[in-house]
Amino acid sequence: MTDMADVQGARRTGRRGGGGAARRAERTAPRIEAARYIERNIPNFEILTPEAIEIIEHNAETILEEIGVAFVDNPAALDRWREAGADVQGERVHIPRGLARALCATAPAQFTQYARNPDRNVVIGGKSLVLAPVYGPPFVRDIDGGRRYATMDDFRKFVKLGYMSKWLHHSGGTVCEPTDIAVNKRHLDMLQAHMTLSDKPFMGSVTEPIRATDSVEMCKILFGHAATEAPHMTSLINVNSPLTFDNTMMGALEIYAENMQACIISPFIVGGAMAPVSVAGTLTQVLAEALAGIAYSQLVRRGAPVIFGAFVTSIDMNSGAPTFGTPEASKILWGAGQLARRLNLPFRSGGGLCGSKLPDAQAGYETANTLNASLLGGVNFMLHACGWLEGGLVASFEKFVLDADQLGILHSIAAGVDVSENGQAMDAIREVGPGGHYLGCAHTQANFKDAFWRSDVLDYRPYETWVDGGGPDSQALASVRVQRMLDEYVAPPIEQGIADGLQDYSDRRKASEPDAFG
Amino acid sequence: MTDMADVQGARRTGRRGGGGAARRAERTAPRIEAARYIERNIPNFEILTPEAIEIIEHNAETILEEIGVAFVDNPAALDRWREAGADVQGERVHIPRGLARALCATAPAQFTQYARNPDRNVVIGGKSLVLAPVYGPPFVRDIDGGRRYATMDDFRKFVKLGYMSKWLHHSGGTVCEPTDIAVNKRHLDMLQAHMTLSDKPFMGSVTEPIRATDSVEMCKILFGHAATEAPHMTSLINVNSPLTFDNTMMGALEIYAENMQACIISPFIVGGAMAPVSVAGTLTQVLAEALAGIAYSQLVRRGAPVIFGAFVTSIDMNSGAPTFGTPEASKILWGAGQLARRLNLPFRSGGGLCGSKLPDAQAGYETANTLNASLLGGVNFMLHACGWLEGGLVASFEKFVLDADQLGILHSIAAGVDVSENGQAMDAIREVGPGGHYLGCAHTQANFKDAFWRSDVLDYRPYETWVDGGGPDSQALASVRVQRMLDEYVAPPIEQGIADGLQDYSDRRKASEPDAFG
Repeated sequence: MTDMADVQGARRTGRRGGGGAARRAERTAPRIEAARYIERNIPNFEILTPEAIEIIEHNAETILEEIGVAFVDNPAALDRWREAGADVQGERVHIPRGLARALCATAPAQFTQYARNPDRNVVIGGKSLVLAPVYGPPFVRDIDGGRRYATMDDFRKFVKLGYMSKWLHHSGGTVCEPTDIAVNKRHLDMLQAHMTLSDKPFMGSVTEPIRATDSVEMCKILFGHAATEAPHMTSLINVNSPLTFDNTMMGALEIYAENMQACIISPFIVGGAMAPVSVAGTLTQVLAEALAGIAYSQLVRRGAPVIFGAFVTSIDMNSGAPTFGTPEASKILWGAGQLARRLNLPFRSGGGLCGSKLPDAQAGYETANTLNASLLGGVNFMLHACGWLEGGLVASFEKFVLDADQLGILHSIAAGVDVSENGQAMDAIREVGPGGHYLGCAHTQANFKDAFWRSDVLDYRPYETWVDGGGPDSQALASVRVQRMLDEYVAPPIEQGIADGLQDYSDRRKASEPDAFG
Repeated sequence: MTDMADVQGARRTGRRGGGGAARRAERTAPRIEAARYIERNIPNFEILTPEAIEIIEHNAETILEEIGVAFVDNPAALDRWREAGADVQGERVHIPRGLARALCATAPAQFTQYARNPDRNVVIGGKSLVLAPVYGPPFVRDIDGGRRYATMDDFRKFVKLGYMSKWLHHSGGTVCEPTDIAVNKRHLDMLQAHMTLSDKPFMGSVTEPIRATDSVEMCKILFGHAATEAPHMTSLINVNSPLTFDNTMMGALEIYAENMQACIISPFIVGGAMAPVSVAGTLTQVLAEALAGIAYSQLVRRGAPVIFGAFVTSIDMNSGAPTFGTPEASKILWGAGQLARRLNLPFRSGGGLCGSKLPDAQAGYETANTLNASLLGGVNFMLHACGWLEGGLVASFEKFVLDADQLGILHSIAAGVDVSENGQAMDAIREVGPGGHYLGCAHTQANFKDAFWRSDVLDYRPYETWVDGGGPDSQALASVRVQRMLDEYVAPPIEQGIADGLQDYSDRRKASEPDAFG
């Protein structure tokens, strides 16, 4: 990690791709509003007692030693584990008590992920919170077109919306699955979209090791060869819970770690199916899996940047559906955050998760429950922060802008309470006195513009005005905002040579193999 | 306070009205599910640093001493303050530094509010959280009838829904304003509805001192003369912010305090209008007002049960509308909770607040933001926990059941994390092993019924089933639930003599004066 401590707007010099011409172009581009990643000035909410932490940490080590974890179809991984001192039996790796934790210690506590616009660099770890959009839905939904398979055109629209969303720090990865592009080629189009339609940081492909390699190669075109000296991608490596590490995900992890790109090592758990139905049991399994995965990343390359991930939902025992915004999910999130901080590692969890099929009240409750839990639980990297609908099956255009708007609240809460003389406002209280009114006082006049967070999409009109405007619900208001943002979108400038290089690489790779579907 | 320490299901004996016959009748009544009030097994979220608390507490004392508070049209109050050592100038009471805080020390840290069904008694203060419905809306809304003035028929429906809502502990007060009944008589009908259609605890009238007296007299009919020995009502005394205590509210407070009934002393603040536009400034004013009001309650009767209230919203500086679910409101709630706990007093704040005109996504986000902040902020009494719409102008039938359902989440989170052997679930993890599935394992079979909180109204169906069912949104689903609950409602039994006594009292009082409107 270079300049990891240089949190404040770390601008790297000597980059090739994002060099002088690009920076000059950026300076003349239309300004879009973009908030800096969040730095929390508030405490974390910690639900586990010291005794509970001790029990869970002890049990996780017991799992690693007695039960072990499976590294499937991956002889090289088994060799690495054997060399490190694990007891490998078949594909089962039994990790002696304490070994995984010791290996995790070489991973950085925080790191900077670089963007092609240096103002959009993000620090991941410590007190920071980086917000990224929904990841993975095969479907999209909007008010006019309903629910349908996602296309590359939809994907580009979401990248544009992400670029235009001021509270979103990260362009994400598979914002939706462009199902109209061959499965072995769509990653090229997705990367190209993130790299050219936005200047925020983004994620790499993980669905095959070769696609991780493509992601690294395209980063070299965009950022120059410095690309592999520090993180320019943060990619999502799901653990195949319970306790299984498949060779597809591990193959991608190996490539990213070798190239100093960041990975989120994330147990993906539907509680009751992939983990026990209890919070403490699930946390124990999450910790065991994260320990094993992160330790493995350090066996691949000491110091490789990683994030302790925990994606946990519970199952509805009546319908079998995964549920979101539930109390169990919040408790697991808070507990997992404590366990990650005990390892001194960045933490990924939460998001704007919901099970609702529509951007309705259910979506609002479930999403806000998750967003609030995430903020207070010390999440450092929040995937799915906006646009997630129907248990992640659907990327919703309206919900994308509704959620992205709510993210402003997280920024304001995280800033904490200003107790400066201006914050104390004693002059105002003296000026107004009993029975008076603050609207006109000097302190209000001086501060009202920035005093209160204000939604850009929710309805604050008087009732009668709202009725005269047709009485729209949130979905209808959001639909208008989606269209306006897309209409106003202007691509951030990019050096023509780089744009051409990315296009050439994609064309060449697409021509090198036949389309694969399914 | 009798038996204040006897938190567990404190059953009082020797009560007259709620005596043997009533209890026998209760035992044969159809069982409705009703959760006990919440006892938190989780920490509070505290946003203020010790330094910030020190500044705010110091400044609040400065306000009380230098600026003072106004007690309007209330010579007796001025006399009480003068006797207590305050410097009274006209109607302005200047309270020497430390006096108000010292007076507050005689108020109980927690108390039991008794219900006519002793299983519904609630403890207010300490680690408890009591949930009560919306208070005050002149309008109601439902999916079929739209928005309209509330009537007594609507009021009774809400009381029935509250009685049927298992996560709601309290029947509330003015669940909506029955505008079809004369303003000087509707309190009689409202009290009668709470007393006869529900067996949960309730609130008294505060709109005129005589109506507080009526509330006490009706309690004597319901509970016998023991009614005034301990709290059987918790009533809402709003401070006329900034720093003004009007004689209507203070008149009601005096009657309740003299009769040992609980009052919530609650600054009612739209930030930017009735308080400074800063969080710290607002907290300072809230503290000064609560200190003065609570101190006054103790001047009326030492040991009278009171709650430190803080109802704070902010104003949208564009439209002038109050806004809800905002970051400023959450920060003020958390800070006010800390200030209340420093006084060792029960704390009222929060609720299911929103500004939305419909039970849509906006309502969901804003409401969940407030509910989550309230739970973690240590609120002991949460008014407006369900049914609040459009900034409190509207009581929504659908939102009542949607919110009341979400309150189940608060119960589950507050229970904390079970780290018993069963909670640890190590046997399950051993049984399932890498790559296995938990659905069929013994631990899941033994625990799945109670493992996860489950909504009774939100949609968990597979997409296709939901489409076949018409693809309803949350409002439509809630509408069905409202009707089913009203259809299934059966009144809790009451001794005929008591019911007749309440009717007689109401008839007599109504006949004693002409109708007044407006």
